[in-house]
Amino acid sequence: MSKPLKLGLAGLGTVGVGVIKILNAHGAAMEKRCGRTIEITGICARDKSKDRGVDISNIPWFDDVQALAISPDIDVFVELIGGDGDPAKSAVEAALAAGKHVVTANKALIATHGLALAKLAEENHVALNFEAGVAGGIPIIKVLRENLASNKVSKIYGILNGTCNYILTVMEQQDRDFSDVLKDAQAQGYAEADPSFDIGGIDAAHKLAIMTSLAFGTQLAFDQVYIEGIEKITLEDLKAANELGYKIKLLGVALDAGNGIEQRVHPALVPKGRPISGVDDVFNAVVAHGDFLGQIMLEGKGAGEGPTASAVVADILDIAHGMVLPPFGLPVADLKPFEHSRMRAHEGEYYLRLLVHDKPGAVAAITQRMAEQDISLDSIVQKGQTVMSKDAPSISSDVPSLQVVLITHKTTEASIRKSLQAITDDGFISLEPAMIRIEET
Amino acid sequence: MSKPLKLGLAGLGTVGVGVIKILNAHGAAMEKRCGRTIEITGICARDKSKDRGVDISNIPWFDDVQALAISPDIDVFVELIGGDGDPAKSAVEAALAAGKHVVTANKALIATHGLALAKLAEENHVALNFEAGVAGGIPIIKVLRENLASNKVSKIYGILNGTCNYILTVMEQQDRDFSDVLKDAQAQGYAEADPSFDIGGIDAAHKLAIMTSLAFGTQLAFDQVYIEGIEKITLEDLKAANELGYKIKLLGVALDAGNGIEQRVHPALVPKGRPISGVDDVFNAVVAHGDFLGQIMLEGKGAGEGPTASAVVADILDIAHGMVLPPFGLPVADLKPFEHSRMRAHEGEYYLRLLVHDKPGAVAAITQRMAEQDISLDSIVQKGQTVMSKDAPSISSDVPSLQVVLITHKTTEASIRKSLQAITDDGFISLEPAMIRIEET
Repeated sequence: MSKPLKLGLAGLGTVGVGVIKILNAHGAAMEKRCGRTIEITGICARDKSKDRGVDISNIPWFDDVQALAISPDIDVFVELIGGDGDPAKSAVEAALAAGKHVVTANKALIATHGLALAKLAEENHVALNFEAGVAGGIPIIKVLRENLASNKVSKIYGILNGTCNYILTVMEQQDRDFSDVLKDAQAQGYAEADPSFDIGGIDAAHKLAIMTSLAFGTQLAFDQVYIEGIEKITLEDLKAANELGYKIKLLGVALDAGNGIEQRVHPALVPKGRPISGVDDVFNAVVAHGDFLGQIMLEGKGAGEGPTASAVVADILDIAHGMVLPPFGLPVADLKPFEHSRMRAHEGEYYLRLLVHDKPGAVAAITQRMAEQDISLDSIVQKGQTVMSKDAPSISSDVPSLQVVLITHKTTEASIRKSLQAITDDGFISLEPAMIRIEET
Repeated sequence: MSKPLKLGLAGLGTVGVGVIKILNAHGAAMEKRCGRTIEITGICARDKSKDRGVDISNIPWFDDVQALAISPDIDVFVELIGGDGDPAKSAVEAALAAGKHVVTANKALIATHGLALAKLAEENHVALNFEAGVAGGIPIIKVLRENLASNKVSKIYGILNGTCNYILTVMEQQDRDFSDVLKDAQAQGYAEADPSFDIGGIDAAHKLAIMTSLAFGTQLAFDQVYIEGIEKITLEDLKAANELGYKIKLLGVALDAGNGIEQRVHPALVPKGRPISGVDDVFNAVVAHGDFLGQIMLEGKGAGEGPTASAVVADILDIAHGMVLPPFGLPVADLKPFEHSRMRAHEGEYYLRLLVHDKPGAVAAITQRMAEQDISLDSIVQKGQTVMSKDAPSISSDVPSLQVVLITHKTTEASIRKSLQAITDDGFISLEPAMIRIEET
């Protein structure tokens, strides 16, 4: 039996409490698995006296997270504070510099400062594990770092934000508007009081940037993720997509475009019948394509006490087993500089929904503008009745409009943007056009 | 840079050749990942001169697999011979006893002799890795051994045989009979000339037994897997299931039934809309339920050169990283004896398809027999027309029959079997009844 593995736990929110519960429930079994006990030998949170439903009275309390991070009584610093700045950042830095392994669920910290932290971990021969930061209970970090290490990855994408997936699922299933469902999600605790990180796509972008580095062996480039959130998705879009055989999901996508890596987070039309289209509610899923492995999909709960704490404890178990790998798969010095494939070079099919003035020649003028950009159309659905959207207070009431939905064949983002600008300038449409990329997965 | 990891490769079929291709394509990248080169320093197969599309002229050739297994020039013995007997078994034993790590894709060997081999590996402090043996490119062994180590697993199930899934998918999509599609699958190389291991469920049972041990921490018990193959599934069943909202899949299921572990392989009706129901063709999928993690699903290619070889190389990379875990997660001495929950105690819903003589009182007599066993019915579908199945040459041509499909509420296997025996004895039905379990996943 080796000596115990001693943990310093910083942060006692849902995930921290979950970690304690797992160690209480399965500590004995895990001891048999790794031949040593795993003990919490220090703890630190904002409020010592708060009742969290778990007994922490026997664990030494630290008022100062920095003191915990470098305590001689811990081997692993478990950072569950969150946020890309201090105190999380300086505590993680201090722990690594002091030769402590670090396990964290903090995707914002890793996405923005991961490279420097990985370098620090390498220099000190310790692990920096962050499975819980990406897609909660789905072991995608481990799969990328270890299983797909025998492959060249060409594409990785997924549903990475449970809040957005929940909102889109409920909108579609219950015929409800975005703002209405968002309020509901906030009341139920599925969305934060300030939901902008989730619905604006930032959270998914953090996760995507981390996956991109592991999948492609490149340096982290969170600041080069193209980001669109789900705020503009309307019930009309969900219905029109459904009629055309698609579902709308917020996807994070990274792919090798030849001239660089495309990194993007945006709502996308996904053909029904593809595995990812059936991933609903708060579930997450990640699909990766390897040159030998082919396609693999992992689906599970992306958030919540149990799934996230499970991932934290699995990371701790790897350390207990003596497994210390480069945090991003390759040593930092071997990670290639990130080469950015610009969004305007993106190639794909597009869904467009326009409110077109109901007068002769309008649709002809629109399709002419698309032809000028060499965009050919797969389908046009024109609803015969006049549309007066309640989401569209700016429609002048004396101009009746028709809803026209277009699906293009493959084209470029640049061509689509040019044609939409020309269409808008022509003055035949009310409102900004809705443009959603189609992801042929 | 550590010293190279030297491989002895036994068997040069599809998977062996795939391993060489991966090392050729990605050897340099893998060297950076693990800080050491991975080299094949010995090779052994039946025919030295055969052209396999890869250059093996620089690799030392061994005519004797035993000599390769214990060669001082190898660190890892990669067994890709197959079969639960010799030469694979004695070669693996010799390698482990000589202190060589072993990586194998041989599910039959592991399912039948895994415990003894794991003990030998433990005694010699070497790894025995078999990811490629279960569900090909899906990393379920690693996920069970490492990620789910922080959970108590209550149920694990999956589509574990690509041949069966391909046959069922084509039957359903192309309205074709079992024997017809099987011939086609054989011609295309998706099924063996002797397909009994696949379609009879043995192959899936090998994989299930291995997963059960890892998931529940129990000793391997392949001989206690209840097995039914897909030979009796008819187009009528697929169509009737489809109308009722189900698909038919060959599942391997292991669950903690309270009084022991249920281990079973059989065709099952899976409700449409559940993730696993959409897993078609040669794809495999595994779903696991952990007490903290919740449900997780992994889907990918279960066979073929690339996926299987990827799994073999991932196992080799773990060894290159110095990761040596107990093969079944726990040391052999800590694996609990397998307690078998008998099939007759199984509880679930059932699909029954009967060809009932078209005369008064027949259906009433049948439902009465079910009521006597306290079986209540969720639905009855009676087709008005007389059925003369071409699959049913034994139907006496002067007895017109009706097809009656019943879906029961939850009951036990014992009750179903008793009621079907009584119904058969009553003489109101032509042919053996079709009985397929429903898996409410």
